[in-house]
Amino acid sequence: MKNLKYYLELIRAKNCLTASFGTIVGGLIASGFKLDLMYNILIASFIVYLICGFGNALNDIYDIEIDRINKPFRPLPSNKISLKNAKIFSWLLVTIGLLLSMFNNVCFVIAIINALALYLYAKKYKRNKIIGNLMVAYLTGSVFIFGGASVNNIGITLILFLCAMFATWSREIIKDFEDMEGDLKEGVMSLPIKYGKKSLYIAGIFLMVAVVLSPLPYVMEMFGEIYLVGILLCDILFIYSIVKLLRAPSKNSAKKSSKNIKYVMNFVCFCFIIGSILK
Amino acid sequence: MKNLKYYLELIRAKNCLTASFGTIVGGLIASGFKLDLMYNILIASFIVYLICGFGNALNDIYDIEIDRINKPFRPLPSNKISLKNAKIFSWLLVTIGLLLSMFNNVCFVIAIINALALYLYAKKYKRNKIIGNLMVAYLTGSVFIFGGASVNNIGITLILFLCAMFATWSREIIKDFEDMEGDLKEGVMSLPIKYGKKSLYIAGIFLMVAVVLSPLPYVMEMFGEIYLVGILLCDILFIYSIVKLLRAPSKNSAKKSSKNIKYVMNFVCFCFIIGSILK
Repeated sequence: MKNLKYYLELIRAKNCLTASFGTIVGGLIASGFKLDLMYNILIASFIVYLICGFGNALNDIYDIEIDRINKPFRPLPSNKISLKNAKIFSWLLVTIGLLLSMFNNVCFVIAIINALALYLYAKKYKRNKIIGNLMVAYLTGSVFIFGGASVNNIGITLILFLCAMFATWSREIIKDFEDMEGDLKEGVMSLPIKYGKKSLYIAGIFLMVAVVLSPLPYVMEMFGEIYLVGILLCDILFIYSIVKLLRAPSKNSAKKSSKNIKYVMNFVCFCFIIGSILK
Repeated sequence: MKNLKYYLELIRAKNCLTASFGTIVGGLIASGFKLDLMYNILIASFIVYLICGFGNALNDIYDIEIDRINKPFRPLPSNKISLKNAKIFSWLLVTIGLLLSMFNNVCFVIAIINALALYLYAKKYKRNKIIGNLMVAYLTGSVFIFGGASVNNIGITLILFLCAMFATWSREIIKDFEDMEGDLKEGVMSLPIKYGKKSLYIAGIFLMVAVVLSPLPYVMEMFGEIYLVGILLCDILFIYSIVKLLRAPSKNSAKKSSKNIKYVMNFVCFCFIIGSILK
């Protein structure tokens, strides 16, 4: 049983749960909260859990040398799990995940793309955040579409995917602004390292894309006016967060802004849920 | 030789050339017009030609019964090429295309995704334009990224990809608005059929996403002020086209607007080329 605890640590179980939760949200919204499709949604969220776990384990496998210094308490550098077992375990996760995803063609394709993206991220793009940010943004957004695909209704989750992707992309850049010092020391490349404060304008542009896309579910008559009111409030908060950051860019204001954007993103999710229930 | 002419008709050679040209533009911009990378770019544009030809041939193969009535002069319904030969030829094109694309990992992955998308489009989503539009938009944008990938510099072409994708998505919806009558008769589903005039607001939102993204190459210091001036002019023309259409939506104004947007898109390409040369 102690071993299980280490494996849950290796795959960062909480982080996987968050991703699974996103899939459930996507599935419920796409199915209009029809509970007879709950079986598909739960399978999809389990697959997301497995593949997310694969990605997280892979990160630790590739980082084992750095973690011996930076995070010696992690399961691999502390030898609580052997490198060989971690490798077998992570490939087992992705294999089961991909096999299960065959229940739906679109899910299968997304699962393959995501597994590939997670592999490339762990191997290469974690140290080149310029591309890495986009991968994280895509992967974050994709959990919603995965839920939608599992109930054969991608439509609305496609919008949630795009909004989540661009908002996450923006937030990752802001987080990189906050982490600039550490990244410079470790030789990691990021937009803020390359462009300095100007990178926050890039973050601003991506956040504006999410804002521009956000009324789509209302325009497409998927959701009603309550959604519109909620999402416009979110948009105002997004704009406020980024304008405040652009006016006084610092490590501290970046930290605050990235936190705010995270809260607003959760509220966006909430608006989609409410929109879907009250439509 | 006459046979060759029919095969060129089957793959819609001109259309493939346009796609190839986009790849050359993407490659040149990404390589900063370094002509020693021209070999990679030409290979990439040849691959795009082949895979685009595969997609177009596949469209005719799946449409053979409809074309017997609507377009009896096409190579398949007029029996200038047998269905069997067309099938062999199209699979030959994609096989050679995919094999050649192995010269670069990213190109290979994009080529596989695009071949799959073209197959699904021909088989299914041509009749469901709601998804079909996104596929066409993605495929159009991807030719630029393919050129960038061939010279191992996706960066700038990623922005061109996103702008082209959202502008094309917008334009496809406007074109569907123009084609509503015909689509209704043939039982094709599209956003304008589902949402009527409101669909033009969706087109407007997607065009605004392209507009919001367009200054990125300037913000990222990839291109200078001449690019910024040119692209802001394009943005004004985009906004003018869509506002004019939204004020008086009709089949005729949709036709004009879609034509304008096409011209402006070419001008956007031109701005990227100029930006890349004069940076």
